Amino acid sequence: MKLLKESEKRGRPDIVHFSLLEALGSPLNREGLLQVYVHTFNDYVISVAPETRLPRNYERFIGLMEQLFETGKVPQTGQVLLRLERKIMQELIAGIKPTHVIAFSRIGSPMILREVMTKLSAEKRLAAIIGGFPRGHFSQVTTRLANDMVSIDSQMLETWTVISRIIYEYETTISLNKKRLKRPS
Amino acid sequence: MKLLKESEKRGRPDIVHFSLLEALGSPLNREGLLQVYVHTFNDYVISVAPETRLPRNYERFIGLMEQLFETGKVPQTGQVLLRLERKIMQELIAGIKPTHVIAFSRIGSPMILREVMTKLSAEKRLAAIIGGFPRGHFSQVTTRLANDMVSIDSQMLETWTVISRIIYEYETTISLNKKRLKRPS
Repeated sequence: MKLLKESEKRGRPDIVHFSLLEALGSPLNREGLLQVYVHTFNDYVISVAPETRLPRNYERFIGLMEQLFETGKVPQTGQVLLRLERKIMQELIAGIKPTHVIAFSRIGSPMILREVMTKLSAEKRLAAIIGGFPRGHFSQVTTRLANDMVSIDSQMLETWTVISRIIYEYETTISLNKKRLKRPS
Repeated sequence: MKLLKESEKRGRPDIVHFSLLEALGSPLNREGLLQVYVHTFNDYVISVAPETRLPRNYERFIGLMEQLFETGKVPQTGQVLLRLERKIMQELIAGIKPTHVIAFSRIGSPMILREVMTKLSAEKRLAAIIGGFPRGHFSQVTTRLANDMVSIDSQMLETWTVISRIIYEYETTISLNKKRLKRPS
């Protein structure tokens, strides 16, 4: 599963910070089954390696982002964990080659998340687009890229809440929780 | 459902910050069906009113916590949102009067979260205890207070991840997602 988030529509790096911590700490990511991208309003894309361990401290996270926007990658030497590129949404999605693209938006079709994820469980490469902006909706471009646009609550939920729920339901759909519980710790 | 977290075993207010944001932003809390407490290692209990809107900014959250530990409540006038009291875990649990207490720990019995929550769905007042410390396990006192102690993954998960999954499964168990989707936004 690919997770994409448009962010900084009005500059809220705290949303990106929490959301990345949620995604990277998930069992799905630890199994190497998740690839996270952050797409910014001004068409930068940050590719986040699954092995990335982000600082929990917000100021240190901001420092890391500043370094990334200055130099294009973090760290400077060795395996790249964060990479910055100029890329519009169409290029990003085209590069991922998803079998299905689902976008989550309060103005999408009201659907139960569990039912949505069950229906999509056979997709080989599922891309999920989650808005990371405090208000507003996806651009028309993004909307057109999605095969479905669904709403999982009648109120706006926090970006990190939506992300954690999608990841958890996807894990359940592929029985990852059962597989992991059977393994010795 | 009551959510309790022991924290600051080694001083990690960032865990409390993220965890409270997860819990307070959830549909369960917005419906007034969740009450969150933070129990600290040195036996302080913070009661968090469901209406509380915490700062997303970490420094401002720390400032709020400092104010709370100086004066015992936040805000100083009007409806109290955060209240600090000296209280041991036994007193806290006794005051909540739960019909069932479940603790989540990596050394608990391995169980699928969905099955656990389905089994507990008839409980009128369910208390869940989630560790908020970076390492170590619950004290014997806490362990004895719990009717069950379960492990939902073979690896240690982040506190906020466990909290978001428990809340989401509980919401699903009581069909809160279906009820909310039917409502006009």
